[in-house]
Amino acid sequence: VVFGLSKISIFIERGATMSDLSSLFKAKSLAIVGASTKPKKLGHIVLRNILESGYEGNIYPINPKADEICGLKCYPSLLEAPSDFELVIIIIPAQFVAGIIDEAGKMGAKSVIVISGGFREAGKKELEQEIKRVAEVYGIRLLGPNCQGLNYTPNKICATWPLIKKKGNIAIISQSGSVGAEMGILAEREGIGVSSIVSLGNKADITEIDLLKYFALDDNTKVIAMYIEAFTCGQAFLDVVSKVSKQKPVVILKPGKTKEGRKAAETHTNSLTGNREVFEAVCNQYGLVFVDSIDELYDCSKALSMIKMKGGKRVQIITSTGGGGVLASDSMIENGLQFASISITLKEQLKRELPSHFTISNPLDLTGDATAKLYEDIIQRLSNEKDIDIFLPIIGDPIPEVSKVFTNLKDRIKQDIIVCFFGGGKVQEEETLTMHESGLPVFPSPERAVKAIAKILKTQKW
Amino acid sequence: VVFGLSKISIFIERGATMSDLSSLFKAKSLAIVGASTKPKKLGHIVLRNILESGYEGNIYPINPKADEICGLKCYPSLLEAPSDFELVIIIIPAQFVAGIIDEAGKMGAKSVIVISGGFREAGKKELEQEIKRVAEVYGIRLLGPNCQGLNYTPNKICATWPLIKKKGNIAIISQSGSVGAEMGILAEREGIGVSSIVSLGNKADITEIDLLKYFALDDNTKVIAMYIEAFTCGQAFLDVVSKVSKQKPVVILKPGKTKEGRKAAETHTNSLTGNREVFEAVCNQYGLVFVDSIDELYDCSKALSMIKMKGGKRVQIITSTGGGGVLASDSMIENGLQFASISITLKEQLKRELPSHFTISNPLDLTGDATAKLYEDIIQRLSNEKDIDIFLPIIGDPIPEVSKVFTNLKDRIKQDIIVCFFGGGKVQEEETLTMHESGLPVFPSPERAVKAIAKILKTQKW
Repeated sequence: VVFGLSKISIFIERGATMSDLSSLFKAKSLAIVGASTKPKKLGHIVLRNILESGYEGNIYPINPKADEICGLKCYPSLLEAPSDFELVIIIIPAQFVAGIIDEAGKMGAKSVIVISGGFREAGKKELEQEIKRVAEVYGIRLLGPNCQGLNYTPNKICATWPLIKKKGNIAIISQSGSVGAEMGILAEREGIGVSSIVSLGNKADITEIDLLKYFALDDNTKVIAMYIEAFTCGQAFLDVVSKVSKQKPVVILKPGKTKEGRKAAETHTNSLTGNREVFEAVCNQYGLVFVDSIDELYDCSKALSMIKMKGGKRVQIITSTGGGGVLASDSMIENGLQFASISITLKEQLKRELPSHFTISNPLDLTGDATAKLYEDIIQRLSNEKDIDIFLPIIGDPIPEVSKVFTNLKDRIKQDIIVCFFGGGKVQEEETLTMHESGLPVFPSPERAVKAIAKILKTQKW
Repeated sequence: VVFGLSKISIFIERGATMSDLSSLFKAKSLAIVGASTKPKKLGHIVLRNILESGYEGNIYPINPKADEICGLKCYPSLLEAPSDFELVIIIIPAQFVAGIIDEAGKMGAKSVIVISGGFREAGKKELEQEIKRVAEVYGIRLLGPNCQGLNYTPNKICATWPLIKKKGNIAIISQSGSVGAEMGILAEREGIGVSSIVSLGNKADITEIDLLKYFALDDNTKVIAMYIEAFTCGQAFLDVVSKVSKQKPVVILKPGKTKEGRKAAETHTNSLTGNREVFEAVCNQYGLVFVDSIDELYDCSKALSMIKMKGGKRVQIITSTGGGGVLASDSMIENGLQFASISITLKEQLKRELPSHFTISNPLDLTGDATAKLYEDIIQRLSNEKDIDIFLPIIGDPIPEVSKVFTNLKDRIKQDIIVCFFGGGKVQEEETLTMHESGLPVFPSPERAVKAIAKILKTQKW
């Protein structure tokens, strides 16, 4: 239980007849209105993705002109389909959507996802009011309209595009379908996966606040990543997120740093975006991780999905690449991190024991002679030092077995380990996947590793 | 001919007996001293990479303890190998290197690559002086020592690691083996490739200046990308690079923005790094593109390997993703680019012709209804506008055939096209490779696309 409130009370404000969001995320069966036989149509792509993601409930494609789509029996209307569906996905022209929601209500559905556009964003406010009104009549929860759907890997339902199957613990809430999709693609490519991707669309009913509350209680979610251009209600968001972020890290990308960016956002979402600078300061105070680009949103979410940084900013670099050490050093200072220092006693010991061309300092440079074993020995030795909070091993060569070594180390030492690996080709790709499986975050450049650490440590939560 | 000088006169300053660098890059046959039978040893990896890159000359592995390595006849010493080799690659302990260079000279070799470490960087200045002296006696050009070798795809010689085979037109000169390797890996992964990767190492003989001169005259190289921590001679570098950059773009990453970064660089290279800020200002004046991270070094080199930006900073965004447009807008302003504007007449025309939910402005938002054909029509229409210098189409969905459309467009219009593609999964990967083949640079996020454009346009050359 989050906020010291029960699960019920969180939703009671919406009226007792409103169902919670489990019918959306955990729908046992579903119907898809506008399912298409044509492979390039969204009505086909979404259906195929639901099938290919391994959805285990019944699926009822609705299309009066087809008997079968993707091997599934097709029904001419919702009213003629079996009635066990909880969720209806709608991909038909805007003017017909209200009618379909009415049918969905009559059949006992509890949630709808309206992917179709042509509502408020197209100047058709009354159409949006209408679908909202019909949904409310039946107590149906509505995602969208004008959205890119939803993916929830624990329920094997990818009702969006592209197909992302890899399970992970990052939930993505995005006011841009493309940004949400990209986050999922990056997470799958790196073997990290997602718990969920939700595209908000016009937010006629379900807002970022509903989703924050849902993911706060969702055991499959460890980190919440958000891309938000305009809040439905800024103050309510801060109230909720300040509580959620005490339980789970929340990372947010909120564009609109510039007048031009705000103008573009207001055109895109047709709503006011607010003052971003004030908002950034408040967010940091409230424990949110505030980021500036898609890469940073991904990098910070990745790190937090694996480790819980304890707050100390003193980083010890151990590198096989002099250049990597130099680039990391510049970035550390620019991003407000501190250089850890090794006690004189240990420094002298290491200097005696290790080859003379190694640099025993910070960066600690093992040169091209670095092996996985050497990294292990050094980090093990340094782990008892009191002035080190984080180890940043930088690997600049195709060194095998580093994943094994760092995985062993991470449970033995008190410091966090954040790995940077570049210049390693195929070995790097394989080792990175293995480290991600073992809960060690790996970054492809010194600059990105350092920036992720710094952004996370910037919030006043720590 | 660069600098109004002949090829000979460029090198005459080194003494007439010094060979130029063609024996290094275009060696017709080579020997590799320290070739190893053990797959994990560098002496094995480098030999295998030379073979696998398709090198067509004779290869003589030298190892007194083996008869055959990788299917090649092995010789006990250089003196016993056939004498047609021009290049000797050396991977044996430092104290034996001078002797091998002496043998190489006796056999008529013209270049050596010393991969072995244990010289100046390890406090062994005298060993380095010695190999330099021996090389000079025979007029042998020496790359290294303590370097990661060389790759020159036009001669199918990958005498470094990892194996990079993809031919391209970017030459990379790097004082960090890992940074050079990473640049090659990125370029190969994105279907762009390289003409060359050279790891400078300790620069006992061959410096960044020699290489700049070589690549200036190299028909296989269109862009020169450099990672340099400390210049052998800053003034000489500027003299040369200011001339080279009039012929070919030069992009440079020079770390050391911070005291800590400079200290790390001085430890790494064992030489003074100089004042970076002064250097940055001078570089921009001299026509160099100055960048701040490995990603930027790659991104700017990629763009310049395909297009020659004409200097105008007025960018028109055409997007399928509202979020992408917003993020690009913020980045444009932060990086000093300008928003192009569409004439009122054309704007009114487009508003009449296009669906009402499209935003005809900058960003011009085609929404999720965007198709390749729509991008084509719009850009074609806008290409006659006088206030647009660059088109930045942003694609945030798996839209097929955009590569075909943009490839056709780029030869028909006067503006440059820089593509941003994200959230498109497999379609994106395939289309990106096709666009790179056709000479259209594609970036994986709005922020990176905008930053690359801005960094390139910042030099006063344009």
